[in-house]
Formats: sequence, C-alpha cells, structure tokens
Amino acid sequence: MANDKKLVESITSMDVDFAQWYTDVVLKADLISYTNVKGCMAIKPAGYAIWELIQKQLDERFKATGVENVYMPMFIPESLLQKEKDHVEGFAPEVAWVTHGGLNPLQERMCVRPTSETLFCDFYKGEIESYRDLPKVYNHWCSVVRWEKETRPFLRSREFLWQEGHTAHATAEEAEERTIQMLNVYADFCEEVLAIPVVRGRKTDKEKFAGAKDTYTIEALMHDGKALQSGTSHNFGDGFARAFGIQYTDKDNKLRYVHQTSWGMTTRLIGAIIMVHGDNSGLVLPPRVAPTQAMIIPIMQKKEGVLEAAYALKEKLGGFRVKVDDSDKSPGWKFSEQEMRGIPVRIELGPKDIAANQAVIVRRDTREKLVVSLDNIETEVSKVLETMQNEMLVRARNHRDAHTYEATDWESFKEAADSKPGFIKAMWCGELACELKAKEDAGVTSRCMPFEGKPVGDTCVCCGKPAKSLVYWGKAY
Amino acid sequence: MANDKKLVESITSMDVDFAQWYTDVVLKADLISYTNVKGCMAIKPAGYAIWELIQKQLDERFKATGVENVYMPMFIPESLLQKEKDHVEGFAPEVAWVTHGGLNPLQERMCVRPTSETLFCDFYKGEIESYRDLPKVYNHWCSVVRWEKETRPFLRSREFLWQEGHTAHATAEEAEERTIQMLNVYADFCEEVLAIPVVRGRKTDKEKFAGAKDTYTIEALMHDGKALQSGTSHNFGDGFARAFGIQYTDKDNKLRYVHQTSWGMTTRLIGAIIMVHGDNSGLVLPPRVAPTQAMIIPIMQKKEGVLEAAYALKEKLGGFRVKVDDSDKSPGWKFSEQEMRGIPVRIELGPKDIAANQAVIVRRDTREKLVVSLDNIETEVSKVLETMQNEMLVRARNHRDAHTYEATDWESFKEAADSKPGFIKAMWCGELACELKAKEDAGVTSRCMPFEGKPVGDTCVCCGKPAKSLVYWGKAY
Repeated sequence: MANDKKLVESITSMDVDFAQWYTDVVLKADLISYTNVKGCMAIKPAGYAIWELIQKQLDERFKATGVENVYMPMFIPESLLQKEKDHVEGFAPEVAWVTHGGLNPLQERMCVRPTSETLFCDFYKGEIESYRDLPKVYNHWCSVVRWEKETRPFLRSREFLWQEGHTAHATAEEAEERTIQMLNVYADFCEEVLAIPVVRGRKTDKEKFAGAKDTYTIEALMHDGKALQSGTSHNFGDGFARAFGIQYTDKDNKLRYVHQTSWGMTTRLIGAIIMVHGDNSGLVLPPRVAPTQAMIIPIMQKKEGVLEAAYALKEKLGGFRVKVDDSDKSPGWKFSEQEMRGIPVRIELGPKDIAANQAVIVRRDTREKLVVSLDNIETEVSKVLETMQNEMLVRARNHRDAHTYEATDWESFKEAADSKPGFIKAMWCGELACELKAKEDAGVTSRCMPFEGKPVGDTCVCCGKPAKSLVYWGKAY
Repeated sequence: MANDKKLVESITSMDVDFAQWYTDVVLKADLISYTNVKGCMAIKPAGYAIWELIQKQLDERFKATGVENVYMPMFIPESLLQKEKDHVEGFAPEVAWVTHGGLNPLQERMCVRPTSETLFCDFYKGEIESYRDLPKVYNHWCSVVRWEKETRPFLRSREFLWQEGHTAHATAEEAEERTIQMLNVYADFCEEVLAIPVVRGRKTDKEKFAGAKDTYTIEALMHDGKALQSGTSHNFGDGFARAFGIQYTDKDNKLRYVHQTSWGMTTRLIGAIIMVHGDNSGLVLPPRVAPTQAMIIPIMQKKEGVLEAAYALKEKLGGFRVKVDDSDKSPGWKFSEQEMRGIPVRIELGPKDIAANQAVIVRRDTREKLVVSLDNIETEVSKVLETMQNEMLVRARNHRDAHTYEATDWESFKEAADSKPGFIKAMWCGELACELKAKEDAGVTSRCMPFEGKPVGDTCVCCGKPAKSLVYWGKAY
C-alpha cells in the first residue's frame, strides 16, 4: 500500500541533519500540513490537541492569579499603531496591511495585529478613570500575524496562535511585580507541564520588546544546543500610558499615569517540546501534555475476545486519556505509529495476556517494558506516567547542564561558541559594543541575564573591563 | 460620584425602544466596549466568560460525536477563494483584502477568511487519498471577518468569533446524516444550555449558503417577535469536491468525489441570550451559561464576622461559580449591579441572618425570595439554579408559542406580518416569485421549512396554487 510505504521511511537521524529531523518529526507525528497560504500552516488534530492542553493548563494558572480573558479586534488602524514611537518602528516593517473592505478602498489602512499593545491601550484609556478601576489584568487568546521571510512549522510562521496578557497598574512596583509573577508562571508551567527546564532572566536593552522598559525571558536549550526563547514578559513602565494618555485619579484626587505590562506564550512551545524531548523515532510527549496518554494495541485482534478485552481495559483506564488502536494495520505498524506520534505509553494486550490476566506496558521514552496484572493496571499506568513526566524533566535538565559552559576570556568564549553547542555563561560589562562583538565575531544571537547564578568572574569576556552582569549566551532559534 | 450616577440611569424600557434597550443591556451588563476599529467590538470579561462557557459545553458535545479540532490559516489567496463559483460570488463583496506584507505589495492579494470552506477543501485535497482516510470530521474555533456596513454588538459585526465544522464523507447519505446530526447538536445545546427553544428546519434555495446544496437552520424568536438565525448546517454534496478535485479511491479501487458539510455557531448566541431572557432591569443569564451563578452580598459588611461568614459561605458553595461582592459600595448598589449583569442568584447575608444560621436567596428572573438555612444551602442553591434553568426555557417557549400565528390566506398573512410580531406558519408553493412577494409586500425576511409541524392548509398563502411546504415566516435580525 502506498500509504504504508510512506510511513515506514525512516525519520532522518538528528545527528545527521537536525533541521531535517525536526521537519520529519513534525510531519510524521501528523502535527501539521503545509498550505497554499505561504508561510502559514494547517495545525492538524494531533498538533492542535497539544495546543488545547497547553491552553487549558496555562489558562488555569493565569486565572489562579486573577487574570480575566477578553477579546480585542484583530485589526489595528495605522494611526493607532503609530502612537508609540519605538513600538511602531519595531513592528511596522513586518505587518500585513488590509487596504480594501469589500469592493472599496479603506480611508485608513489597518494592519492585522502583530501584537495588541496599542489596542489594549486604546481600550484602557476608555475603561480607566479612578484608582478603583485598577488593576486591570486581562488576557486574550488569539492569532497574530508577522510577515516573516523564512518560516518553519511552530518556530516561526506568518500567523501563529498565542495568548497575550495586558495589565494596567497604579504603581511602578505593582507592574514590576506582575511582570515577574507572569514570567514565573511561564517558567513553572514549562518545567511542571512540558518538562522543559528554563533559565529565567532579563534581556539586554538591545533585545527588549519594542516599547518596553524591561523584557524578561525564559530560555530553554534544545537538543542541538541552540536556545529557544519560550516566553517573555514585559514591563512598559508608563511609556505607553503617556503615548496614549491613560490616566487615573488617585485617592488624593491627583491624575497619574498607569504602569503597564504584557506577556505572551505561543505555539512555538510545541516546537520546544519536539526539540527537547524528541528522538530518532519521532515525537516524545510529556504525559501532562499528551492528547493520548496511552494507546492500547490489541495483539491478534481477530481472535475472539481480544477487542472486547481492549475496550474493557480502556473503560477501566477512564481516568487517563486512552485510545484503542483497532484499525486493520499490523501490531508492528501500530507500534511505529505510536512511537512517531510520541504517545507516552503503549499497552499491548493479546490472547496470552488476557489468559494470564496481564498486559504489557511500554514507555515511549526509555522503551522499558513492564508486565502488569490487569487488577492493578490503573495504579501502574499512573505510576509510569508520573515517573516518565519526572524523568523527562531530569533528563532535559541534565542535557542542559551538560551543555552549559563557562568562559572567562575571549578565546575560551569564542572556542565554546564555535565548537560547543549550548549555553555559555560569561560576564558582560553592559556595553552595546561588546554585545555586538559577541554576536558578530562569535555568532551568539541569544543572551539572557539570569535572576540566579553566581558570577563566573569580574571582567567582561569581550573587553576585559569591569563586568556588570552574568549572561547566558547562546545561538537562538 | 460620577461613576455611580452613570450606573443608576435606568435602562431604556424594551417596550419603548427595543433596540435601545438591547444596547443599554449590552453596555450596562459590561459585556463589550465599542472600539476605534470601526465595526469591531472589544469583548470584556463579563461577555467573554459567557463565550468561554458556550465554547466549553459546545465543544464537549462536538467531541462526543467524534469531532476533532484543527486550526487553518486566517488568509485565503484570491485564486483559492475563486475556485467555487457560487461561493466566491456570495463572499467576495464582503471580505477584507490584504494587499501588502511588510513594506512590499503581495504578488497575489489575500482576503481575511469570511469562512473557511476553501481552505478546508485545499487541505482535504492533500489529506484524502483512500476510503480509509474518511470520514474527516474537523472543526476550528476562530474569528472571521465580513465587511458589514451596519453593525450591532454580537448580532452583526465586522469581526466575530465562531466555530466552523468541516467534514468530508464517502457517501451522500453520510454527509446528509452529519448535517442533520450537527443541526440537532446545535438545537439541543440552545434548549438545554441557553434555555432558548428553536425551530429546526431547512432554508429555501434562495437563502441557502453560497455553494451549498442544502442549508439547515435553527431559528429562535426574540422578545420583540423578530427571528434570529442561531446556527446553520450545510450539506455541500460533491460541489466543492468537484471544484477542488477532492477524490478518494473506494474499496473497489474506483475514484470518487467526497461529500462535504459545514456548520457554524457564533458569538451571536450572546445576542440571542440577551433578547430572549433579558428584562427591563438588564441581562438574565441561564445558570448553565452564567460565569457567576451566585453573588453573595454581605449586608452591613463592616460588622465583625460578616465578611468572614460571606467568605465561608463561598467556600461551602465551591461546587458552583460563586463570588462575594466585598467592594465598598452599598448593598442596594450591589443588588442593581447583580441584576444588570444577569447573575442568576444573589445571596444576602447580614448579621441577623448569621445569628439565625440562614441566608436570603433571590432569583434574578422572578425575584422570588427564599430564606434558607445555612445547613442545607448547597442543596437549596442547586435546586434554585435548576428550577430557574428549566423555567426560563418554559417561559421562552410559551412566549414563542404565544407569538406564533397561522395564516391560510394572503390577507391574514399580511395582517399578521404587519401587526403581530412573531412567527407566521403558512404554506408555500415553493416558487421564488411567492417567496419574493412575501418578502417585499409583507416584509418577512426570514423563512424556515420546519422538520416537524402539521401543514396548516393545502394552498400557497401567496398565490393559492398547491402548496409544497409549511414555512415559518418571520422578520429576521
């Protein structure tokens, strides 16, 4: 069968060609299809279900901190985009412009939102009058558009799905607190749900968001040693409030500007899951974000009682996300599919197992096999999923730590950048010239000043002058 | 206080000016704000939370029938939109066109999706090869854009939120079955969750969706006697499949075209809730779709122990969506707010109640007061919410039935259309001329041929020739 042939072609080994491995996994795990809309992808059920689990769990964490969801328009009139100088400079070159509505040209063209700061500011201006109206802690789940030239599924596409939180506060302190709070929500979510360890820190002035006072970031290390920015949280100070005139009357009847934040996470996280956990057989999903946590694969399913036993087992495992693969493919074929799609656990159940009141559980990440009694299979599946979730985080952390290097002088910095894919911890004087030198001469495009971590020296790794910050340098996706 | 004044201005009575009443309720219930993006609204937390409850419950019903969620791009290249002749004619005049990406003009302009049939067809063409790939039963939750000239919150706006299901089947029978199945999912959802009774039926050829073979609709009657189309389900036959070349190999190795359906529901449902259940004090939310089901309002909250008792009661009612209004407003003020916002139940709790181990429960729809013991308040709240949900449906059905008229000749038809807002049941010969006459001379813009309902005569109400169908005629939103 033509279909079968296509499926068994092996996935490119990640050591041979990491980029091709990534594309192979994305397609063989059935996460997306390319479309005839250039730079945009169709997210298929297996991919979208991961996003739904991310949304649900992230949204619960948001709401626990008092976030409320809203929906803002997808269009931004040009005059609105232009109100904050740095912001428009950052985004205008990469937006899609709507110029006609129906058969008529628009009086003013509008862009499809690349991000919604300007819309929220315009909205808050009308909503906020007094200190009683503060804080506003709103979020919206939507898609945004940025006219990227080179695109890759999940990592960079012209349209992507995300959430963007936008808050307004009475004081600078409260805004800063919320900025850090949301960065920590992101980091905890990555570690606890996606099993992806992250470095929490601040971006350099050069790299901060267009219009922000400070941008905080969480950075994860992919299997190939490249860094992936996995979530950002921005403190705008009162810059946008001044540009848009968002003022409130305080308790002493004085007019003051609000202080704002914004923070976002995107479908890029699915790319991170692939590149942190995947292997040469395909995707490996952390159980908490796996749409199907266990696939029951009947062996000799035409024998009497086998399919019935498989369905009964599915019922018994109703507390988990479980499916039975009862298609007419061979068991070996089903095993490959389950592996490519990253389903955490497969449960093999054949006539002999049924006779012995047992099943075989196989973990996707380690391939460890476990013969368990059907009497306590719920407990066993629960244990395996929990162990797998925890060990995936430990393994990812070990990989990250094993690929984190220190450099105290330019030679060792350059050497690490050239030959050791990973993070390089090195000191920085804070000057743009050194940042640019590191980027241009050593090719490190990612930098994050961590909240935690001991200095690895006193002097800047680039210029030798007194250092101000420890930086995690890396090559960014 | 300026804010206070604004709030107590009364809502326009619906008998005086229904349209103004609607706008007042939308704004005073804090559901939306108007924006500087013409024809687009900002959906505020109180409005968006209703949509989240609609999404959650509808999505569960979809998934129970085997629907899987996906995400398709928001843009449609012009050449793709043009592939199905009727479809492009229907939608091209009302789409927003993107002509520039970043600083450069596009080689081919793209519209922002007004609906995604063409995208799904293009996608299915690549996904479907064999009968094994069928059926495809996909849905996506997204926003769409139609360049409307006159807009009203929720009822008609340039951008709105919705879901659109798109399916592909091996046979015409299976497609028809899915079309009707989804219409029934919609109708049951409206009745069971939104407490809105609907007429299930088919649209006339003139009114069917651009490109469809048959369009089915559910029609609800608003408080002012106007009809609101609340959900539609389309059977495309193989028309789109032929236009896009979507073929599969059947079991006998023959190439066949697939048969397709699509179906959608939108944020318009929030408009329906307002206009079916609202009253002159504001919104009235059916408990199953109320973001806050009960608001606890402490009386004399500065007295020792009152706020603590209110919080303790909230804990006790953890199985419901409950809030405590502990703001520094007066109880009367809080009552008004709870009423305007349509919160189904308010629970008054003051020092005397606490001493007597009781609370006062007040139903939003009937204002019925109930003094209940704190010992069994969970049961009482549960009962009140359930009763209210059921009675709201009965009341809406009674209103609908009381405003459903029969007409067997043109005079009584015209008279009903002119002076009796509601549905008119009358027979129709099936000819376009009569449909247009009814529309132009009697002003009835909505028609639905119900699945159920006895004929009210043998002859067409317009021309007197033999009748083919019973029709619910009405004036549409």
